[in-house]
Amino acid sequence: MVNPVTPSAGVLSPLGLDAVRLAPGFWGDRADLNREVMIDHCLEWMEREGWIGNFRGERPRRGREFSDSEAYKLLEAMAWAGHPGLPELAATVAAAQEGDGYLNTRWSQGRYSDFEWGHELYCYGHLIQAGVARLRAHGEDELTEVARRAADHVCGRFMETTETCGHPVVEMALVELYRVTGTERYLEMARRFVERRGTPALGPIHLGRAYFQDDLPVRRARVLRGHAVRALYLSAGAVDVAVETGDDELLHAIEEQWENTVARRTHLTGGMGSRHADESFGEDFELPADRAYSETCAGIASIMLAHRLLLATGRARYADLAERTLYNVLATSPALDGRSFFYANPLQMRVPPEPREGVVPHTSGVGLRSSWYDVSCCPNNIARTLASLPAYLAAADGDALRVHHYAPAEIRHRGLTLRLETDYPWSGTVTAHVVEGRPGRVALRVPSWAEGATLTHGGTTRPAGPGYVTAEGDWRPGDRIRLDLPMRARWTFPDRRVDAVRGCAAVERGPLVYCAESAGDEPPLALVKVLPGPPAERTADGIVELEARACLVPPADTAWPYRSGNGDAAGRGDASAREDTDVQEAADDASAPAGREVTLRMVPYHRWGNRGPSSMRVWLPLA
Amino acid sequence: MVNPVTPSAGVLSPLGLDAVRLAPGFWGDRADLNREVMIDHCLEWMEREGWIGNFRGERPRRGREFSDSEAYKLLEAMAWAGHPGLPELAATVAAAQEGDGYLNTRWSQGRYSDFEWGHELYCYGHLIQAGVARLRAHGEDELTEVARRAADHVCGRFMETTETCGHPVVEMALVELYRVTGTERYLEMARRFVERRGTPALGPIHLGRAYFQDDLPVRRARVLRGHAVRALYLSAGAVDVAVETGDDELLHAIEEQWENTVARRTHLTGGMGSRHADESFGEDFELPADRAYSETCAGIASIMLAHRLLLATGRARYADLAERTLYNVLATSPALDGRSFFYANPLQMRVPPEPREGVVPHTSGVGLRSSWYDVSCCPNNIARTLASLPAYLAAADGDALRVHHYAPAEIRHRGLTLRLETDYPWSGTVTAHVVEGRPGRVALRVPSWAEGATLTHGGTTRPAGPGYVTAEGDWRPGDRIRLDLPMRARWTFPDRRVDAVRGCAAVERGPLVYCAESAGDEPPLALVKVLPGPPAERTADGIVELEARACLVPPADTAWPYRSGNGDAAGRGDASAREDTDVQEAADDASAPAGREVTLRMVPYHRWGNRGPSSMRVWLPLA
Repeated sequence: MVNPVTPSAGVLSPLGLDAVRLAPGFWGDRADLNREVMIDHCLEWMEREGWIGNFRGERPRRGREFSDSEAYKLLEAMAWAGHPGLPELAATVAAAQEGDGYLNTRWSQGRYSDFEWGHELYCYGHLIQAGVARLRAHGEDELTEVARRAADHVCGRFMETTETCGHPVVEMALVELYRVTGTERYLEMARRFVERRGTPALGPIHLGRAYFQDDLPVRRARVLRGHAVRALYLSAGAVDVAVETGDDELLHAIEEQWENTVARRTHLTGGMGSRHADESFGEDFELPADRAYSETCAGIASIMLAHRLLLATGRARYADLAERTLYNVLATSPALDGRSFFYANPLQMRVPPEPREGVVPHTSGVGLRSSWYDVSCCPNNIARTLASLPAYLAAADGDALRVHHYAPAEIRHRGLTLRLETDYPWSGTVTAHVVEGRPGRVALRVPSWAEGATLTHGGTTRPAGPGYVTAEGDWRPGDRIRLDLPMRARWTFPDRRVDAVRGCAAVERGPLVYCAESAGDEPPLALVKVLPGPPAERTADGIVELEARACLVPPADTAWPYRSGNGDAAGRGDASAREDTDVQEAADDASAPAGREVTLRMVPYHRWGNRGPSSMRVWLPLA
Repeated sequence: MVNPVTPSAGVLSPLGLDAVRLAPGFWGDRADLNREVMIDHCLEWMEREGWIGNFRGERPRRGREFSDSEAYKLLEAMAWAGHPGLPELAATVAAAQEGDGYLNTRWSQGRYSDFEWGHELYCYGHLIQAGVARLRAHGEDELTEVARRAADHVCGRFMETTETCGHPVVEMALVELYRVTGTERYLEMARRFVERRGTPALGPIHLGRAYFQDDLPVRRARVLRGHAVRALYLSAGAVDVAVETGDDELLHAIEEQWENTVARRTHLTGGMGSRHADESFGEDFELPADRAYSETCAGIASIMLAHRLLLATGRARYADLAERTLYNVLATSPALDGRSFFYANPLQMRVPPEPREGVVPHTSGVGLRSSWYDVSCCPNNIARTLASLPAYLAAADGDALRVHHYAPAEIRHRGLTLRLETDYPWSGTVTAHVVEGRPGRVALRVPSWAEGATLTHGGTTRPAGPGYVTAEGDWRPGDRIRLDLPMRARWTFPDRRVDAVRGCAAVERGPLVYCAESAGDEPPLALVKVLPGPPAERTADGIVELEARACLVPPADTAWPYRSGNGDAAGRGDASAREDTDVQEAADDASAPAGREVTLRMVPYHRWGNRGPSSMRVWLPLA
């Protein structure tokens, strides 16, 4: 089956990329842009930066120790997209493979001398994923041969050791290779890598073992921690192993970790990772807006994990989070022209970033889409995800068809073909036209935010609660199933333990998080307070923007930004803020001028920064 | 004069360490602990880690590229403290100096090959500061000779170039060497280093030029930015240059930068630096409690800068910030036994840190005092500061004596000797007993928080407003001047632009910031909301603790930590929080149970973490 994830067990089964065809629309347009622009953009930059030249033996070697993996991620994208450049790039890679299957342009001198930071198995993981994609989408060729030889080398070298890699990903790659080839030692190797972790299997590092999830065995952890991409890739690989080996304990462990992570360590956008310093999840409820790291790749990894858990369990929660992340992380990173990308996805920019040219260090350039980074995982990761996007839209529940995500598309499953028409996420109406019919069930997901949704078919309309709503019938061409999701904008408030955004609200509409952006003549975002009330809608160029009422309160600039009152009625301000004020007034900032009312234009978060450098806020202080 | 800063111009003049003698008390005890424990602790660890062995040519060289500077900071501490180990350490250092004055254990092969990160001039800066301390406290010896040869080497090598160092500090060191020797080329070299910066003088780095203040000429900047320690050392050096060259434009530029930094980029504790990733100031009002970096060394550097500005201008504001930083950063870092130190000083710990042994990476171990760090600037920096602490207490304003900070001490100035008796900061009463008398003025600082202070002498009591209050008289032995500073605990509220602590309050009492700490059976700090009202005082072992009323609200654990309401009266919660709630209720978290009232024990922030690993909060959500 042509699909990035094809488990042999689980509640749902994938349909295959060939069974889901995207039409023009929110996602179809992005998939086209990927095929037509992004993949070539990545290829050009990797040539320019020498990361492909490394495979040709060009010296000095360029790029970071894991740069080989970028070529592999792009090969995977090319495989799914049927990009004509694949054979040439595959041949370049193949030429660098050594006789015993070893392949790494950085470590060919001094193999496996640094498991903590060397990334050799990580690179194999992406190479194998590319090989799997090619096998499924095309069949055997040079790339698939290279990948199998690499996998065989890995099994030979590591089956009986206690070693593993500082950066997980090889686990899910090996399970996928097992799925497509049936070769059981790949599954066994993956299982061992998962089980080794946290025994511990790696040396101590200055960031601590939790950084690469080597602090605890996978099945004993309670929450995702450490480097977000590493944690999510590892979890995805563990789900793959659990599903193929029937290891329910392992599956449930990951489910619990996911639940705790989503309940306490996830940004409103679905983004994961709070810390810049080590690209990690922070502690529970450590979710700063301005310094949210929310790496694009962590969003992609989260979608990969949620998709696996969805297939395994059929639970709508996983699709809910995947949708949130698709619209608010994956769609946010690339610029509208597909030629620059966010690496991090903060929820607040206090000051418009300075424009930067050329290759930008991934550690800086926050709030700025850049053409390329010194660590450029995100563009390639987006490319491979957009190239396999149809895999996420729908799945089979036996004979029944389940649709998780809404986009104009045609979906086929065992003699039933539906043509989905929708202007989602701008409109909440989704119509499934039966093109080819048979008796059976069609389940449509009602997102958790969609209170008041209705399902209409066969002349009747009924309420459709959150989760999957099922329409059963003897479907004939011309039949229609209509789902209406209420698309009213809504205010959203954080758990009180999310200290960073206390006293703030955000606006969501459908699956989209909105933000205020100060790119033009908008009021300075540090000085507005919003007045909750239904935001007005305004559609421009097919995009729904919102207008919120707010008041603009001039700053009370003081020499010291903290003001004291005594613990009784008639306290006094600190030296720098002389006005009389009692405690509650000081707390409420009521001594500030009342401000004047302004209209705050709010745009979908995924579109921010496309009008030039800007300040931005998702979370807005309440008046 | 025996003093770390001896400007030849300015409103105030230093008194000299020999004119101020600390007696037992808050600071006297710490100075004793430094002399008796901390200096030896640092010496032992540097021997153990090989950083001193580097000077003996032991190989492989150990420690970071700037580890030489740690030996120099400690030599400065030893010089001020009259530590008997100085000659031996100085001889070890001297033996490593090359014939032309060059001295660096890391770069002797490949001198000056990396100005951005090499730290060679930074190391000279600390060596020269040690030499200056020795010259003033003792007179010429091997250490002072080494320092002068190094300074001469620097002048010879760099006077006519356009180069400078990625880490400032040599600027103030050279000015001080000029002050003590009268050799004008040291001042000129310092002036050139200050002026070169931001032209730009350094190469681009991945963190951007603002990281080491090379983005703008010093006199054109408006606010401190980039790496906090670098920015503060540079500013201190610029003040030294400005004062000695009569460059008022440069002085005013630093004053303005300081004003803006204090108004917008300083934590309540006086701590500076918001970001872990590059140890930098963030943007204006980016002052997270949990991820406050507030490096101990940045606090020390801020005290150094404020002290210079105070001497130059006589303005009480600088002493106010220095006091805040002394009590809430400098005093916070060392453990009560003087054998472990905080590197970073966050204002919130969500979870008690994991205990760690041995040399801890400075990038981790937050919330934990460690014996030693891979980058161990902080312990040595504390040692040299505590060893020269009397320099900060008082100054001369011509014939008049000004006392900035209160501690049991004896202070002499031109025939007037005062013995200060006080239990400050626990009590607000300070009595200056005249031991040796003459006619003249005595000015005492009234901190900005001390509304309602009074001054009593000669039988009259009068109100004493913030700033300096002056007592004039023909002082005779036995006379007393009494300052009464009201020590009532006060609630303090942040500027509304400090997003991270919106809706919170902190408690201060006198110069001390307080915190709630959960080391024992205290309620979980994530779940309390405080009820403002006068905190109760409780004195235990001489320490004033406070008790605040709070309510403990059980968590409403939900699967998703954000809850939606519609923009009108009868909105509904998100899928994960099903209860009906209107917008304002959701915003107020009023749907949570009301909670039960508890008493929250609050300890001085500088004492937190001394009872073992704990969670901690300075900023507490308001009920």
